[in-house]
Amino acid sequence: MTAAKGYSACAVKAGIKYSRPDMALIFSEKPASVAGTFASNRIQGAHVKLCREHLKNGVGRAIVVNSGCANACVGPAGYRDALAMASLTAKTLGIGRKTVFPCSTGTIGIRLPMDKIAKGIRTAAVSLRRNGGPAAARAIMTTDTHDKQYAVEIRIDGRSVRIGGMAKGAGMIEPNMATMLCYLTTDAAASRPALQRCLGAAVRNSFNKISVDGDQSCNDTVLFLANGAAGNRMLTAAHREWRIFEDAVRLVTKELALMIVKDGEGATKFVTIRLKGAASPSDARKAVRAVANSLLVKTAWFGGDPNWGRIIDAVGYSGAKVAESRVEIRFDGLGAVRNGRKAPGFALRDLEKVFARKSFVIDINLHLGKASDIVYTCDCSEEYVKINSEYMT
Amino acid sequence: MTAAKGYSACAVKAGIKYSRPDMALIFSEKPASVAGTFASNRIQGAHVKLCREHLKNGVGRAIVVNSGCANACVGPAGYRDALAMASLTAKTLGIGRKTVFPCSTGTIGIRLPMDKIAKGIRTAAVSLRRNGGPAAARAIMTTDTHDKQYAVEIRIDGRSVRIGGMAKGAGMIEPNMATMLCYLTTDAAASRPALQRCLGAAVRNSFNKISVDGDQSCNDTVLFLANGAAGNRMLTAAHREWRIFEDAVRLVTKELALMIVKDGEGATKFVTIRLKGAASPSDARKAVRAVANSLLVKTAWFGGDPNWGRIIDAVGYSGAKVAESRVEIRFDGLGAVRNGRKAPGFALRDLEKVFARKSFVIDINLHLGKASDIVYTCDCSEEYVKINSEYMT
Repeated sequence: MTAAKGYSACAVKAGIKYSRPDMALIFSEKPASVAGTFASNRIQGAHVKLCREHLKNGVGRAIVVNSGCANACVGPAGYRDALAMASLTAKTLGIGRKTVFPCSTGTIGIRLPMDKIAKGIRTAAVSLRRNGGPAAARAIMTTDTHDKQYAVEIRIDGRSVRIGGMAKGAGMIEPNMATMLCYLTTDAAASRPALQRCLGAAVRNSFNKISVDGDQSCNDTVLFLANGAAGNRMLTAAHREWRIFEDAVRLVTKELALMIVKDGEGATKFVTIRLKGAASPSDARKAVRAVANSLLVKTAWFGGDPNWGRIIDAVGYSGAKVAESRVEIRFDGLGAVRNGRKAPGFALRDLEKVFARKSFVIDINLHLGKASDIVYTCDCSEEYVKINSEYMT
Repeated sequence: MTAAKGYSACAVKAGIKYSRPDMALIFSEKPASVAGTFASNRIQGAHVKLCREHLKNGVGRAIVVNSGCANACVGPAGYRDALAMASLTAKTLGIGRKTVFPCSTGTIGIRLPMDKIAKGIRTAAVSLRRNGGPAAARAIMTTDTHDKQYAVEIRIDGRSVRIGGMAKGAGMIEPNMATMLCYLTTDAAASRPALQRCLGAAVRNSFNKISVDGDQSCNDTVLFLANGAAGNRMLTAAHREWRIFEDAVRLVTKELALMIVKDGEGATKFVTIRLKGAASPSDARKAVRAVANSLLVKTAWFGGDPNWGRIIDAVGYSGAKVAESRVEIRFDGLGAVRNGRKAPGFALRDLEKVFARKSFVIDINLHLGKASDIVYTCDCSEEYVKINSEYMT
């Protein structure tokens, strides 16, 4: 988070749920252009509502995040608490309230302990450090087993431009934005509309292509600050090096998204599902998601059970147009299913070898049209059940 | 299956996958009216295709079922095998081929061992017994931990009429027909269109209201034979006692459906979810299913974790119209959520007590309209993952 120039960050122990640092503050020395995307869930965390409003203002200076409590489904008080979190941060840092983006992640239905939050904000405001990014990345974790950070350096207008990011998320992860938070900073100067378009496209190809358990969260938030400290000419889609910037943002979001899947709750395997030959983009999306979210498919992966029948079954009930006799499936290139049935010469023991790997690719071709889609996902283990049967208590 | 007059049944060990009896034969002494409903999956087991065809003929004499192999996704050979299974049964019993309904359940993608099937059919044909119903019910089991049978007796035209049934299914269960087989017999005389309508309505309110894991099977089959041995006047919707018959069929299918959920793979809890106040029937269905199929909700039930936030979260992402501030949720009558947040006076420890029960009811009111729906479902335990990670191997 602090790879780019002009940003500082820190983590503090607010004592909300964990005994480790559970609040993070990210600060931009200069006012930054800000872009954001949020959960599509009809039930939304209080901070999502407030961040959407502040985003209209277009300028960001600070992001303040707590883990351990989602501040969701607590009624109008939740919005007031988010507002207070923003106001106190603004006041303590001497910046405008609408330039502060408060975020919460954790258990739903519990009020934020505002006394602890307030104390945390005051401590954080005097703890900001130029190299505080890694500590902040650890403070936003919930069931994550490790922090998720990524940064790249590119050249724009002959100047060094950095884009860094951190993310959290491990459960309640489903394309359409996951129970995840992601924050990106860059020292590039970029126009707000361009930044928003760039972020939207990057999210569609990263966080909206991952799934752990098919449960869509109500708190998902991605925020992107661009403070111009690099001294480049203002980036817009018309800038001749726009594509370089855009590609770099895609890379950072993609890497962070994959870190989330690989750290999926209880996950032991990372699976890429590529589907092509669908009759329409909507069909491609339905079919690939049905496979990624099938509990029977995910448990078979976990056990290394070469049960390709469950995959074709999921394609069948996905709602996508499917002609059974055309379906083709490959596992790491191994042609297992052709014309809707076991391919000649294919042996289950070969598929067992693929499923024994920590990471593999499944290619599904419906042979009906030209639409394609992709999902990055993981298996479902007994550990997932264990984690989630004991989360709150 | 043999509670009604004029039916015999048996079970035989064909040695397809299990060391226990794995083939069942049900035989009606007289030609019976027959009705059926089948999987809506685009990938369909071979027997589903053949049964649909035979159903057009309208007369049923025999149902022959094997467990251990689904005869699905094996290409055109699967249909030929199902046809051979029907033909051999017909020839052995001396009845018309189109009056035989062959069914298969088990692993997808494997050819039926036709030599074993043929031997099984020949043995079964000479093993039919008037009281063979219970043995047949056990032979169709796959991951079921016990057989599922139910029968009722009613009076129509002053005569005793019986309706009996058996079912199997424990995993790959989702409304829209589960990986389940269900066979019903009655000695009532009933017209074929009336029987089909009656069965369709009964299935909508029973098997299409249950969910174990959200995975829709490709082999689901419900068949209903009515042989007229009771001597009543032909039942149609115009018969003055039609409702008595209809209610009895609903009762049998409902009881069998609930047995399936209660025997869900690894299930430790039986949960009824009633949703009302939805803006449309489609919204009601989406919302209630999203909750029933949420892995996070199901694992919380398993652990007795009073995590109501996951339930409202699932309602939120279901795609149904939802106004967060109106959502109300009760657990066995306990008002936990009102106006989208924790109800005044509600304590998590009270919800822990409800979740500790083997069976409980969740009432969700969206307070937006008049549509309602219901789902009967179960929790998801580590045992479910264990069973399904080792199914094939």
